[in-house]
Amino acid sequence: MAPVDETAAGAAMPEDGYRAPTSSRRVKARRIGDGARDVIDTLAVEEPLEIRIEHGGRVVNRLVTMRTPGADLDLAAGWLMSEGVVDRPGDLLVVRPCTDTTLTEEEKHNVVTAEVGAASAARAGSLRRTVDMSSACGVCGSRSIRELHERGLTAVHDSLRLSAETVVDLPARLRDRQRVFERTGGLHAAGLVDDAGTIVRIREDVGRHNAVDKVVGAAVLAHQVPLTDHALVVSSRASYEIVQKAVTAGIGLVVAISAPSSLCVDLADAFGVTVVGFAREGRATVYTHPHRVVETAVSE
Amino acid sequence: MAPVDETAAGAAMPEDGYRAPTSSRRVKARRIGDGARDVIDTLAVEEPLEIRIEHGGRVVNRLVTMRTPGADLDLAAGWLMSEGVVDRPGDLLVVRPCTDTTLTEEEKHNVVTAEVGAASAARAGSLRRTVDMSSACGVCGSRSIRELHERGLTAVHDSLRLSAETVVDLPARLRDRQRVFERTGGLHAAGLVDDAGTIVRIREDVGRHNAVDKVVGAAVLAHQVPLTDHALVVSSRASYEIVQKAVTAGIGLVVAISAPSSLCVDLADAFGVTVVGFAREGRATVYTHPHRVVETAVSE
Repeated sequence: MAPVDETAAGAAMPEDGYRAPTSSRRVKARRIGDGARDVIDTLAVEEPLEIRIEHGGRVVNRLVTMRTPGADLDLAAGWLMSEGVVDRPGDLLVVRPCTDTTLTEEEKHNVVTAEVGAASAARAGSLRRTVDMSSACGVCGSRSIRELHERGLTAVHDSLRLSAETVVDLPARLRDRQRVFERTGGLHAAGLVDDAGTIVRIREDVGRHNAVDKVVGAAVLAHQVPLTDHALVVSSRASYEIVQKAVTAGIGLVVAISAPSSLCVDLADAFGVTVVGFAREGRATVYTHPHRVVETAVSE
Repeated sequence: MAPVDETAAGAAMPEDGYRAPTSSRRVKARRIGDGARDVIDTLAVEEPLEIRIEHGGRVVNRLVTMRTPGADLDLAAGWLMSEGVVDRPGDLLVVRPCTDTTLTEEEKHNVVTAEVGAASAARAGSLRRTVDMSSACGVCGSRSIRELHERGLTAVHDSLRLSAETVVDLPARLRDRQRVFERTGGLHAAGLVDDAGTIVRIREDVGRHNAVDKVVGAAVLAHQVPLTDHALVVSSRASYEIVQKAVTAGIGLVVAISAPSSLCVDLADAFGVTVVGFAREGRATVYTHPHRVVETAVSE
């Protein structure tokens, strides 16, 4: 569904003037379950950030992460310190907003440059390079979505329909099925749901993205992909990456116990995926493509 | 604190025989607040997994992620599908446990090999390489910890002492200070706490690691690192990476509203960091180095 507006986030923190410039966005959505109605809902913004590490005017390394805009210079400085690129504050010469004239204004907001000393530059250049588990591949959200189109992914078309009563209850049923969570309280779960509303597979992990990869991967190894007419239920928030994984597996309905991000909703909108958030205690919110969630006359 | 034992996770799922082999570990811990006492607590296991992508007997790429052991072949298959390395199940020739004879038995449990067809091998070889935001650098947890020692990091020595009453209340006070969460329900927060128990900085993000990087980075830019005699409070679980970020910034006390992982506790134990989990509703659990949390006579 189309964004309504973007708003600045809250008052500045008195201690250090912290202010998150565009941390939330308002969208139209549909509350289902008890007290069903159309609402205006507020989403946390999720956009990629590219951190360029420079020394002597040359880019020695760069990384991309999904983040909520705001305090981006802090994020760059903190990451460089955590990863050991910067040993002490003096190694970090300056962190500044992007001035790359080849980028659009929108893209510039998603790039920061950190100038570092010689020792830090050497460490940055030799940072272990791995294939990032993240799909944060563009320097703006719309480009990230475009790159998925270019990868050949297409919108999900299926005939899955689940009742609102079934959908709002899925995270609670996933929770009932978790074995390890009972003892540790520390594991995320992801479940695959068939068109009768039955949770047919479940996997758990400390990482919510891993739990989704595990449950989809089990279906891959069982030759059940594409998972047409299946839903994915997660014990967490719904992010861009969760919806990307659903689209890749051919899943058209994602149900989360907690909030979706802005880019999650944008991606779901573009690829025909129904995103349901805050599914708990007999209620939920439908953000995109509501036709897969069937409301009974009584609850309307 | 030393592990008590490792246990197999729950019963197999009837549908597909899913079984998580060593997903939880029992440790000694100390409950504080109402009903303070020594307890045996259960942690979700967190260990690195290396996925080797092979074609024609040659490794074309590899990636490392932190995960909970169990369903590792599923995780590899699902990740390869999500990232578009494998377009259809037939591209994935086989996913198998590691047979690398240069690795120890412990390390072998943290490596899987995926053999892929020619088209998938080409895609895997050209995967965008980024510097991973993750610190998952070894193929076993103990090696990950050793690499931090080799990076020159040393145990935190400070004189921070906070009362149990203050500690159990920190996540609730962090929550009260969150501006964006009120509207979206979707943002994590991280806060820095001084030796008087006051939250002096806060940052928010859809990613919990980003929130920590932002709040530490703000201190870096204000020339306040190392953050001796400060605590870090997070609105999430406590993972290996959160404690790594604390150690790097010189922080000796980490307080989380939810569960710590096994490797988080191991790392905190090795680097002198106090880890407190499940800090909510007047109670919390102290897992390591409890001397920084002062219990009053009344609550003992």
